[in-house]
Amino acid sequence: MTDTDTRSVVVEREIPFPPEKLWRALTQPHLIEEWLMKNDFAPVVGHAFKLRGDWGGVLDCEVLAVEPLKTLAYTWNHTHADPAYSLESVVTFTLTPTAAGTHLRVEQKGFRPDQKQAYGGAHAGWRQFLANLEQLLARAA
Amino acid sequence: MTDTDTRSVVVEREIPFPPEKLWRALTQPHLIEEWLMKNDFAPVVGHAFKLRGDWGGVLDCEVLAVEPLKTLAYTWNHTHADPAYSLESVVTFTLTPTAAGTHLRVEQKGFRPDQKQAYGGAHAGWRQFLANLEQLLARAA
Repeated sequence: MTDTDTRSVVVEREIPFPPEKLWRALTQPHLIEEWLMKNDFAPVVGHAFKLRGDWGGVLDCEVLAVEPLKTLAYTWNHTHADPAYSLESVVTFTLTPTAAGTHLRVEQKGFRPDQKQAYGGAHAGWRQFLANLEQLLARAA
Repeated sequence: MTDTDTRSVVVEREIPFPPEKLWRALTQPHLIEEWLMKNDFAPVVGHAFKLRGDWGGVLDCEVLAVEPLKTLAYTWNHTHADPAYSLESVVTFTLTPTAAGTHLRVEQKGFRPDQKQAYGGAHAGWRQFLANLEQLLARAA
């Protein structure tokens, strides 16, 4: 499968906090649980982990890239007996310091053309996850 | 597997709306999407459908019971290559009219003793789903 066969979801936010604070929220399991899902994440390339939704769903993930304060990438896969419902994607967080805090770019790539619903859902999902993240940062002094 | 091998999550709410209104929110796909997940539900015993989370996860469901204004039950299954992450459960909604509206009881049964995380997650999940449901009912005149 070539890149041109798949689509990406990209969501960007200006976060009014420094990269150090945002990086902690992206890489510490107890904080990831607050804005994303329960997990056994560790910021180590090659580390395999699960993200577990409150409704019983499970994502299979593996850390692909860790550049402290700059880049974090991991797979975001969901296997299902019916290929139409299987998802093999990669999520990349890119942090850039700004005068006011941090520019955060989140890209999830790997949606096949026949996965329009999953693609649309991911847009909505990331908007909600990032809203949760901003609330967490605001209340975590 | 006998009933004694599994645990149930039970959440109850007093809903300040009549059963007719609550029933619509539980059985109309575009309303179910508002408080629960995207879906191709139909209130017909034997109907197979999916619930799709915004993050790419999919639940396999089948309608088990439909008693209009009273009872709705469906399977709530998640298959995963690792049995530890697979879930075979049944969700039952029971509506009882009250002076102030409707008593809603939601039971999800089928959690194995080794699924403590999924069990705890379901508690949190249903609290959130039912909060969404109450908000939907309040704003839908």
